[in-house]
Amino acid sequence: MQLRFSTGIWVFGAGIERFAPMGYKSAKPIVDLIKDASKVDGLTGLEFHYPTEVNEENVKDVKNTLSVYNFKAVGIAPVLSQEAQWAKGALSALNENTRRKAIDRCKKAIDIARELGAEILIIWPGREGFDFPFTTNYVKLWNNYVSSIKEVAEYGSDIKIALEYKMEDPSSYLLHGSAGRALATILELRMLGIKNVGINVEFAHAKLAKEYVPETIVLISRYNALYHLHLNDIFFDADLDLFPASVHTLEFIELLYWLHEVGYSGWFGLDLFPRYIDAIEMVQQSIYNVKALYNALEKVGWAKIRNVIELNNPIEVQKLIREILGTKP
Amino acid sequence: MQLRFSTGIWVFGAGIERFAPMGYKSAKPIVDLIKDASKVDGLTGLEFHYPTEVNEENVKDVKNTLSVYNFKAVGIAPVLSQEAQWAKGALSALNENTRRKAIDRCKKAIDIARELGAEILIIWPGREGFDFPFTTNYVKLWNNYVSSIKEVAEYGSDIKIALEYKMEDPSSYLLHGSAGRALATILELRMLGIKNVGINVEFAHAKLAKEYVPETIVLISRYNALYHLHLNDIFFDADLDLFPASVHTLEFIELLYWLHEVGYSGWFGLDLFPRYIDAIEMVQQSIYNVKALYNALEKVGWAKIRNVIELNNPIEVQKLIREILGTKP
Amino acid sequence: MQLRFSTGIWVFGAGIERFAPMGYKSAKPIVDLIKDASKVDGLTGLEFHYPTEVNEENVKDVKNTLSVYNFKAVGIAPVLSQEAQWAKGALSALNENTRRKAIDRCKKAIDIARELGAEILIIWPGREGFDFPFTTNYVKLWNNYVSSIKEVAEYGSDIKIALEYKMEDPSSYLLHGSAGRALATILELRMLGIKNVGINVEFAHAKLAKEYVPETIVLISRYNALYHLHLNDIFFDADLDLFPASVHTLEFIELLYWLHEVGYSGWFGLDLFPRYIDAIEMVQQSIYNVKALYNALEKVGWAKIRNVIELNNPIEVQKLIREILGTKP
Amino acid sequence: MQLRFSTGIWVFGAGIERFAPMGYKSAKPIVDLIKDASKVDGLTGLEFHYPTEVNEENVKDVKNTLSVYNFKAVGIAPVLSQEAQWAKGALSALNENTRRKAIDRCKKAIDIARELGAEILIIWPGREGFDFPFTTNYVKLWNNYVSSIKEVAEYGSDIKIALEYKMEDPSSYLLHGSAGRALATILELRMLGIKNVGINVEFAHAKLAKEYVPETIVLISRYNALYHLHLNDIFFDADLDLFPASVHTLEFIELLYWLHEVGYSGWFGLDLFPRYIDAIEMVQQSIYNVKALYNALEKVGWAKIRNVIELNNPIEVQKLIREILGTKP
Repeated sequence: MQLRFSTGIWVFGAGIERFAPMGYKSAKPIVDLIKDASKVDGLTGLEFHYPTEVNEENVKDVKNTLSVYNFKAVGIAPVLSQEAQWAKGALSALNENTRRKAIDRCKKAIDIARELGAEILIIWPGREGFDFPFTTNYVKLWNNYVSSIKEVAEYGSDIKIALEYKMEDPSSYLLHGSAGRALATILELRMLGIKNVGINVEFAHAKLAKEYVPETIVLISRYNALYHLHLNDIFFDADLDLFPASVHTLEFIELLYWLHEVGYSGWFGLDLFPRYIDAIEMVQQSIYNVKALYNALEKVGWAKIRNVIELNNPIEVQKLIREILGTKP
Repeated sequence: MQLRFSTGIWVFGAGIERFAPMGYKSAKPIVDLIKDASKVDGLTGLEFHYPTEVNEENVKDVKNTLSVYNFKAVGIAPVLSQEAQWAKGALSALNENTRRKAIDRCKKAIDIARELGAEILIIWPGREGFDFPFTTNYVKLWNNYVSSIKEVAEYGSDIKIALEYKMEDPSSYLLHGSAGRALATILELRMLGIKNVGINVEFAHAKLAKEYVPETIVLISRYNALYHLHLNDIFFDADLDLFPASVHTLEFIELLYWLHEVGYSGWFGLDLFPRYIDAIEMVQQSIYNVKALYNALEKVGWAKIRNVIELNNPIEVQKLIREILGTKP
Repeated sequence: MQLRFSTGIWVFGAGIERFAPMGYKSAKPIVDLIKDASKVDGLTGLEFHYPTEVNEENVKDVKNTLSVYNFKAVGIAPVLSQEAQWAKGALSALNENTRRKAIDRCKKAIDIARELGAEILIIWPGREGFDFPFTTNYVKLWNNYVSSIKEVAEYGSDIKIALEYKMEDPSSYLLHGSAGRALATILELRMLGIKNVGINVEFAHAKLAKEYVPETIVLISRYNALYHLHLNDIFFDADLDLFPASVHTLEFIELLYWLHEVGYSGWFGLDLFPRYIDAIEMVQQSIYNVKALYNALEKVGWAKIRNVIELNNPIEVQKLIREILGTKP
Repeated sequence: MQLRFSTGIWVFGAGIERFAPMGYKSAKPIVDLIKDASKVDGLTGLEFHYPTEVNEENVKDVKNTLSVYNFKAVGIAPVLSQEAQWAKGALSALNENTRRKAIDRCKKAIDIARELGAEILIIWPGREGFDFPFTTNYVKLWNNYVSSIKEVAEYGSDIKIALEYKMEDPSSYLLHGSAGRALATILELRMLGIKNVGINVEFAHAKLAKEYVPETIVLISRYNALYHLHLNDIFFDADLDLFPASVHTLEFIELLYWLHEVGYSGWFGLDLFPRYIDAIEMVQQSIYNVKALYNALEKVGWAKIRNVIELNNPIEVQKLIREILGTKP
């Protein structure tokens, strides 16, 4: 399995949040952010928000700069949550005018993706849900939402539409809270002939849904729907985009094993929130964490690991884990 | 909407558990349990485990007793978790011999369902998952599981196969942990022509998956897959089958509203664990809780509630909720 | 029990957050915010952040404006989280320079509290913890934290220091994650003769710690440490400061009962995040929600409720709840 | 730090539970269970329930058998949950007769502890709480509970009373749900001159309370209250007593580091639920897991780890973790 790493260009940005309204760092022009990204050893892909990071005005500059630094544009994420206009929904909005704006934004993001040669449109449905009991007609909400995704997928039939499910936040409750819910939409659309909708698994989001990510990867792959990864980590429920494998280390090791086994050929995207950490260093260490754990698996050997797993025996597995971790009792 | 109530006959049993290995009450013959059930006002349906509660030996007796007390047999639940033989899986078992036994058990339960005139086979997949990291080939596990459900559904093509998803417990992690995951299987099977697999929503299980049950009901109904309900309640994560609406009262009210709106025509099944409470009284109060909240909605009126929800305005909703609760500031 | 309502002046502000870096509304001068607050029927107290909302420059203006609108200053909350300088801790900071700045900020906030006649200093320890495994000397962290609280409490010996515990967020993990942890600190300080440290229970924060708030109130009152309340509500784990009682309605009713029973004489503070809702209306409906549920209890009568609870009988309680909700089966 | 391992003799038992009412294995006499335990390499201590495993009848036999196999009796756990009589509380029971029985059981367990030379009485407060809203007078519940613990601690003034807190289950909600709550009781009792009450940290229980166990250990040690450990692991919320470190591997490594740093000198108790796994093997692998991770720390060296942690720098910590895991990028 080839380990190709990409990251969101937003990782190099200012980091404004509710608990730091002035941000943690100063803002920079997009070209300078790409230059920062180029300092990370082993990083070869970048992802962008449309229109805040890449847009019709700067797309040629961005394209040139990517070329200068040998970066591949991997994915475009239309901004569908981080603006007040989407507070009560974007693609699922009950307000038809808002919903049309959201679809339009996705179509324009697809145009930008084509121009940059990016293969993936990332839809993070952070406002596709509701905030309070009894406020919402869920029948219409689901109808609108699936109908919007369908329209976007038809417009971008040459693009992979990757749903980045999340349990909650910024809205109280999200329709696509888990892999299973995203899969239901994907299969519904396939029955209608739409074949280019899949999933972007964000590690921390999967944990919010109480998923065990190695198994989730296998489930999604069962439907050939694993389009992209956003690797990071999380403590409990605060989604802070920590270094991959810095908390759920063993789960991460098993995740790498199953990515290998299902023949994942996509990118290893890194979605991080550096706050007080230098962004270049955080991306760098994230790549190193992933590579190191992958090496630990390679050292033991795929065939040996596969054989132990086939035994389905927890006793033998304890021995295997100790071997992977390079330690003995 | 007609409120027809059923309950599991196990509710009237001894209540053995890990923390009470001698049970809370003495065991009784099945006929006596049905007699107990007949003392509940408004209870017209019963559900049974196969083969521990109903089986080939006693099915005629059970049928006669149901007839004597004017009970309808609503559902049969094959025992696929509560025996040591299923400790490492039943329908998904990696051991083919075990898996065949589990399929066979389901088929026999379908035979019993037919004999009793029960329309639903309830599959509670409490062992269809795994306990530890790195012990399991998830690809095979999913293949086996879906393949087994398919075979059972084909055998029982005249029966509704209702998957009662649950996040975890007794196994550490379950494949069908949430409504979304069950829906993915259901849609996969529909693509193969299998149309009689749906869902039994167990309220507490849905809460374990961090679902908001009113919305979940709508999502499942979108796919015409809402076959049955197991109503109860839960505090946090200990699945103790409390009185319906005794904790999540407002959510329960909204659930009843949406069951009305989606035109649910199935049974209101009650899955309770009375422990130190008299089982007859617990079932009785559960029915009263549901009826009372339904009456509170009727009193305000479906049209009025519908109109407020259409406003999609949290301020107006606060007024509505206070009206439903019959109180003023 | 007298229901005196206060709210944070920040509720009327712009609402900047990670998912809306431009805010939901335009910023206004503090005097205008107080004027907005005066439009809420039944609101008689206000709370302020120091130095972002009230500070040495504007304190006289604020005091005058409060007087004009007949508001009582209830509490001052020093900003100890919402700035990049506190990203790795404030009162618990391992960097001694940062820690001194945090203590100094609290002392100045106490001076402001005295000038405004506010009785409470609210410490929300949102950065008193850590973000990653293995990065932190927890021994020093706890030493620093308790030592800082001690110094602040000694400086403000005439002020109630109210710890607003929270499980997590903005830091990954917080030392004062639950009522129990705050109580341990409070009792430790009492052994040292410090008697003016207690708790501000924020409803949503308590839910993040899997607390049942009515019971928590009783536990805290056992130690005479219930200094203040921040009422609101929450869905699952996204802390969005929803209307009080709009989700956990029954729990809220029982909370009001126990506040009555323990003789709570403090303020009913409202901590809300209106986003797309008009702030004046959100505070207004929050007050109405609380008053309405209190009225529902009064209607049944405290003595009757008390008698049923003394029975310790879940069956009788179901009847009681239906009576409180004003409905019948 | 000396690694001394003990385990509960119940680990070698039949394993009856709600989902396996017949158990997973056949029951055996206590002497045979001790013989089984003796087959585990490195196991030198045992723990017993009173009166189900050790009691006045068999205590001499047990003592002799322990002596034969060179086992130390480490702790006695009075049965206060696993019987129907405690369904509504034991030490906190609102029924005074029940409460006296619970206190009496603890006193008799202390007598047995003295006879066996065990230093610890383990109180697992699994029924000290409530099941439903509005059923319980929490003021009395807390009064009763603390008063009972006081009486038990006074009776056993030569014994360490170790509270094994747990969030929930078998009761819906437990008073001692977290370390913080247990500490509040402990400090309250110290103010009354009672100095022999502390904590038994059960790893999985701590995770149910969303604690990060390495930090919790430090917090408890701050009050010299870390009396005992029950090591195991857990997936999400189903408390299945898995192999230590088999899920939360990195957290376990940091836990061992901090046990070393706070100078923990107690036992490494193992509380496991083998189900379908051979109990002897499960205990054996659990010991090996702990030893192997401890060796991994020793290999890097305590001083070096300490120095990195003092840097309080997440970047340097990623490098450290990779070194502990014995792998490189």
